[in-house]
Amino acid sequence: MSEMNVEAVARQAREASFALAASSAQGRNAALLAVADELERRSAAIFEANRQDMEAAEADGLSAPILRRLRFDAHKLSDVCCGLRELAAMEDPIGHEQLRRELADGLVLSRVSCPIGVIGVIFEARPDALVQIAGLCLKSGNAVLLKGGREAMRSNAALFAAITDAGRAAGLPEGWAGLLATREDVSRMLGLDREIDLIIPRGSNAFVRSIMEKSRIPVLGHSDGVCHLYMDADCDAALAARVAVDAKTQYPAACNAAETLLVHSAQLHTGLPVVAEALLLAGVRLRADERARAAIGEARCEAAGEADVGAEYLDLVMCVRVVDSLEEAIAAINRHGSHHTDAILTRNDAAAEKFFALVDSAGVYQNCSTRFADGYRYGFGAEVGISTGKLHARGPMGLEGLCSYKYILRGHGDVVADFADGRRSFTHRELL
Amino acid sequence: MSEMNVEAVARQAREASFALAASSAQGRNAALLAVADELERRSAAIFEANRQDMEAAEADGLSAPILRRLRFDAHKLSDVCCGLRELAAMEDPIGHEQLRRELADGLVLSRVSCPIGVIGVIFEARPDALVQIAGLCLKSGNAVLLKGGREAMRSNAALFAAITDAGRAAGLPEGWAGLLATREDVSRMLGLDREIDLIIPRGSNAFVRSIMEKSRIPVLGHSDGVCHLYMDADCDAALAARVAVDAKTQYPAACNAAETLLVHSAQLHTGLPVVAEALLLAGVRLRADERARAAIGEARCEAAGEADVGAEYLDLVMCVRVVDSLEEAIAAINRHGSHHTDAILTRNDAAAEKFFALVDSAGVYQNCSTRFADGYRYGFGAEVGISTGKLHARGPMGLEGLCSYKYILRGHGDVVADFADGRRSFTHRELL
Repeated sequence: MSEMNVEAVARQAREASFALAASSAQGRNAALLAVADELERRSAAIFEANRQDMEAAEADGLSAPILRRLRFDAHKLSDVCCGLRELAAMEDPIGHEQLRRELADGLVLSRVSCPIGVIGVIFEARPDALVQIAGLCLKSGNAVLLKGGREAMRSNAALFAAITDAGRAAGLPEGWAGLLATREDVSRMLGLDREIDLIIPRGSNAFVRSIMEKSRIPVLGHSDGVCHLYMDADCDAALAARVAVDAKTQYPAACNAAETLLVHSAQLHTGLPVVAEALLLAGVRLRADERARAAIGEARCEAAGEADVGAEYLDLVMCVRVVDSLEEAIAAINRHGSHHTDAILTRNDAAAEKFFALVDSAGVYQNCSTRFADGYRYGFGAEVGISTGKLHARGPMGLEGLCSYKYILRGHGDVVADFADGRRSFTHRELL
Repeated sequence: MSEMNVEAVARQAREASFALAASSAQGRNAALLAVADELERRSAAIFEANRQDMEAAEADGLSAPILRRLRFDAHKLSDVCCGLRELAAMEDPIGHEQLRRELADGLVLSRVSCPIGVIGVIFEARPDALVQIAGLCLKSGNAVLLKGGREAMRSNAALFAAITDAGRAAGLPEGWAGLLATREDVSRMLGLDREIDLIIPRGSNAFVRSIMEKSRIPVLGHSDGVCHLYMDADCDAALAARVAVDAKTQYPAACNAAETLLVHSAQLHTGLPVVAEALLLAGVRLRADERARAAIGEARCEAAGEADVGAEYLDLVMCVRVVDSLEEAIAAINRHGSHHTDAILTRNDAAAEKFFALVDSAGVYQNCSTRFADGYRYGFGAEVGISTGKLHARGPMGLEGLCSYKYILRGHGDVVADFADGRRSFTHRELL
């Protein structure tokens, strides 16, 4: 890859962001449809680029799960084009009037949603992610700098060319999307706080953490996903077993997979053996504290050590610990969890309400799997990331998470002195 | 002041934040009323503490504007108590259901507003600010660490004691508010990213900038306020003069005071002389570019230099520059402004709409003074700060800016595997 001028790319994205912010919903939707058409038209070239990426990845001995994510075939193409067309049909997130208030006679304040500006997204080696992210940013009127996994380099270049060529033909401003090539490009991007408004990093825990520590630009996302399941004193064991198996095994490498099972001591000899049996049958290795291990059977599980408390296994391994109260469970989750998604398994709705109020996480669930924490499942169309921070978007970030707002004030020569001197007074009347 | 353990204070605030998040609106409102009563009951002690601060400040030769802000008299007490009682009467910002969606049969997602958690606020030497900020945080269920100006130390201690004593009697969790004493305390606070969720710095440009650069915790606020007025080609000169005088002189030290006047060249010999005359009469010194200076008269204004472009004077000084188009004005504002609040003075609503769409600022105004950018004037009750960032709250931050949200998912044993395998499908039906 040739040396690229990240500063110039970012400056052009900033310029393009102003034009995008003033663009019509029809224009952005037409561009989304044009991109979908162009991707289909160029499918042969895209598949060929992906074939080369796959070959190189196999030669490098990458694991089967990585190869599965790297593959971009007719099925994935159909998925992303379908996604782009769904995005085009969705309501415009921009220009939505969130507030209209008469401040005083003839002086009207509006708050209107607008794009954030320029977003930098760093994502894993999944070529379909590039299309989804570019689509979400385009729909929400944001310029975007994209940096995908190195393994998907050729696929990403082919997809990016199709997207920007179609966008240009559809009248999008030049440079609204940029493709970064290397980790050095990312490092340079992190310093461009005048040009870039938001960084969304996805990928490994250590990588995301390093981005969060190095960036001068606001970062939204999550490094770890240490989701908890808590079996309350009053809990259906069969339901708990079904949910635990799904939360742990349906996709163990996901950030919303459960890592720790907390068990109320009242369930030690009733619910726990049922849930443990189901997890063991599903191939999960259990690392249990002393009381849990005695209840499950010493031969059937390992002893949990210090390192298991709050561990993110991303694998078919689960930590099992006993607590003596709901309060103890909540405190453990707030202390050792990652504020991502945590579930209580209980028949007791009052306990669930307390759990909802006191657990300091983006998602708090009752009687269902933590794996539901996902933009598509939440009905957002898709997600650009999942945030465990508490500012701006929390949890799965869809189109709404890519929007800001501005205050518009329309007057007729109004001055503050009139109000300070008592000649006029504020009415603060809601007009929406 | 004795050495304080900032870490312990922050940890206690974190613990208290969990209890506050689960507290009732009635409880928090009763505490607000109790605080107001207690402040009135202790007025003599508070005024005496303020008298000592004032004496020390006068002995130190502080300026008249600082002394005015430092003074806490019966009038200010009445203001803050009135503000607390208004806050108590306002709608609860917490527990508001923003979204309710059936994801699938029996699986319901809600998004509910919740406190952010622990907020650190650093503010100027205005004792009334301490009461306002503590009140806003209490109403929104947030724990707060307060650091006021050194000059107001005794006043702040007296106010803080009244607030926390009344809060304790009203049943608020111990440690929900903490008072920091020194700049070293602030430095230590900035490293406590596990205990503190948000920092809001107010004060001088350089100070705020240093906080933003040093903090590991998200920071909302603004360092500079370089607000622009733009006189469009089609503009009422008398209206422009009235607005310009207010925006520049009504309170020149405020961040929402205008610093630069951009003038369309079509107004060079019509509108500009009228506006310049009004500004000069109001005691404003003008620093004008070559064309503007020729139009105003060389003897009546100074020549603007490089340093005047984008300067924040905070004084009765204004930079005047000529542009040849609306587009040039917009580009100048985006490049040299501070994304705070900028106004267009025009009869042409299409020009105003373009200005609203393309100017990348928290506030975009037509035909009114930039001085309206303020939480009280916007009808938020009060403000904890003004943010020029585009994430989370933008512009004046009231109660809403002190809230986050969480997703609550209620199910009956629902698992993702059923959806992945096609046994169930998502309905995504809105229930609100």
